[in-house]
Amino acid sequence: MSELRKDPIIGRWVIISPDRGKRPTDYGTEPENTISGFCPFDEGNESKTPSEIYAIRHSDSKSNSSGWKLRVVPNKFPVLRIEGDLERQGLGLFDQMNGIGAHEVIIETTNHKHTIADLTLEDVVRILESYRARILDLKNDKRFRFTMVFKNYKHAAGASLEHPHSQLITMPIVPKRVWEELEGSKTYYNFKERCIYCDIIRQEIGQNVRVISENDRFINISPYASRFPFETWLLPKQHMSNFENIRHEDLFSLGEMLKDILMRIQKVLKDPPYNYLVHTAPFDFKNPEQYHWHFEIIPKLTRVAGFEWGTGFYINPTLPEDATRYLREAEI
Amino acid sequence: MSELRKDPIIGRWVIISPDRGKRPTDYGTEPENTISGFCPFDEGNESKTPSEIYAIRHSDSKSNSSGWKLRVVPNKFPVLRIEGDLERQGLGLFDQMNGIGAHEVIIETTNHKHTIADLTLEDVVRILESYRARILDLKNDKRFRFTMVFKNYKHAAGASLEHPHSQLITMPIVPKRVWEELEGSKTYYNFKERCIYCDIIRQEIGQNVRVISENDRFINISPYASRFPFETWLLPKQHMSNFENIRHEDLFSLGEMLKDILMRIQKVLKDPPYNYLVHTAPFDFKNPEQYHWHFEIIPKLTRVAGFEWGTGFYINPTLPEDATRYLREAEI
Repeated sequence: MSELRKDPIIGRWVIISPDRGKRPTDYGTEPENTISGFCPFDEGNESKTPSEIYAIRHSDSKSNSSGWKLRVVPNKFPVLRIEGDLERQGLGLFDQMNGIGAHEVIIETTNHKHTIADLTLEDVVRILESYRARILDLKNDKRFRFTMVFKNYKHAAGASLEHPHSQLITMPIVPKRVWEELEGSKTYYNFKERCIYCDIIRQEIGQNVRVISENDRFINISPYASRFPFETWLLPKQHMSNFENIRHEDLFSLGEMLKDILMRIQKVLKDPPYNYLVHTAPFDFKNPEQYHWHFEIIPKLTRVAGFEWGTGFYINPTLPEDATRYLREAEI
Repeated sequence: MSELRKDPIIGRWVIISPDRGKRPTDYGTEPENTISGFCPFDEGNESKTPSEIYAIRHSDSKSNSSGWKLRVVPNKFPVLRIEGDLERQGLGLFDQMNGIGAHEVIIETTNHKHTIADLTLEDVVRILESYRARILDLKNDKRFRFTMVFKNYKHAAGASLEHPHSQLITMPIVPKRVWEELEGSKTYYNFKERCIYCDIIRQEIGQNVRVISENDRFINISPYASRFPFETWLLPKQHMSNFENIRHEDLFSLGEMLKDILMRIQKVLKDPPYNYLVHTAPFDFKNPEQYHWHFEIIPKLTRVAGFEWGTGFYINPTLPEDATRYLREAEI
């Protein structure tokens, strides 16, 4: 059983998940390569995953059988579990919660080899639609505060299976990075009565040195203080705090821009591993004027992280303006 | 020339260092393996490094020649440079500084193959003494606010040379992680009028489930909310905000505990890559009662980081109490 523990000094919650437990000697060895061989996400292998929670299917197909276009299933090795009441306790100085939450896998397509960059716009929209539907459903559970949707693409970025998939973790807390963004945006809003992300978008469009691509409703930019080479943020141009409130018709514009940036990254950086993360406001967020949801897309290009992990101090060897130029000029 | 850029939302400074610049295609390929072959840090090769800033030498030896026990030299590829005035500017919404600072390498021993775990206590004390001396010197430069001393051990933890060495970066800002600790400790102090680290040490000694080892003056513990498996903090038992104010005689007790934990990690985890970082208060810190310096030691055991990087949300597969037991029982 997992538990959540809070660092008493800086207030960061971590998941201690010994279900996935490892003895010291397990760390030295490489894990079994689950990339190759049998794939539980392939069509026809539906019985090898936990029962589906959500699916987009051909009209004549049945749950947990073939005939689907996209499936969402619980993670077989969840870091947080859905069953149980949320219990909080103090342990002297320390704060603890039991590991309640949801951990789901979005199986994006039946095609084992596709990447989002190769998918049709219709396929991408289906994925985004599933993110929205799952968040809206999980939001009804009053034990939970936040859902993080993310994708690990390729082994080096954390994928343990090759078949195209994303994940979501629903949790009883707000993760530190998002919480910091909420606090920072609030401070700015209180001072200026404007959304800081909206101001950044306006400034970036004006300067036009960190804008990679845009359409009517969405924009891809290299953040001014990028931590990582070729880090990209994808934002809605119109202010909106919660991703799950996106209108169905805007999913097409979003899909277009997500596919656009992933194709550029694939082309310029030779199909690198990457992570993307959906940063959105908490479920019960009361100040929608103060936060602006966005995707963060981080190609995994540098191998070293200990120093950055330990200090929060990042050294980025590529100027964001140079990254922008490379990505902008990509022939896609 | 590097520059420092501040994220306007969460206030994190990053170093953009295009001197180390890479084109997109450079990222796909593995770097040349600088681990093997000629070593500029070996005795006799002093002319291959920049001129030494500090050294502990045999009495009859000359600067920048053989006959040394430890040398400190500027990093040949510094992320921050010592020359120039500190210039700050706003760029619309954004804040920027030029990349002024110091980036030095501590060559810990003439022995190319040694690790801190193998060194004698006298050798380890010499290394700690050099950290202290360099911080005290750099502290005189009014352009700077903070020095981070750190060690990347082995290639996978970021070392580009095998020869035993540590590094330090002196900077005109305080890195985010340390700044968060200062803020958290201050909040606690304002509420309780006690140091939070002192309270943690007292509680850990009382509970005795996360104490790995201790001597009269220092203690190694697994932090309650460890982000990483086998993460360890090494703290002075007596309150002290700034590492560089340590008394010379206490360097022996500190060296003993640093060697102790590195030997345990080497034994239990089969000589893994690791990072250690010295967290200390800024140069001009006015509230020494509110912060407590410490070493953070992080074995690099898990390979995946994108999700954690992007969210600040860590999943640790080893219970800190289990890690403690393994380390405590190590026969060293």
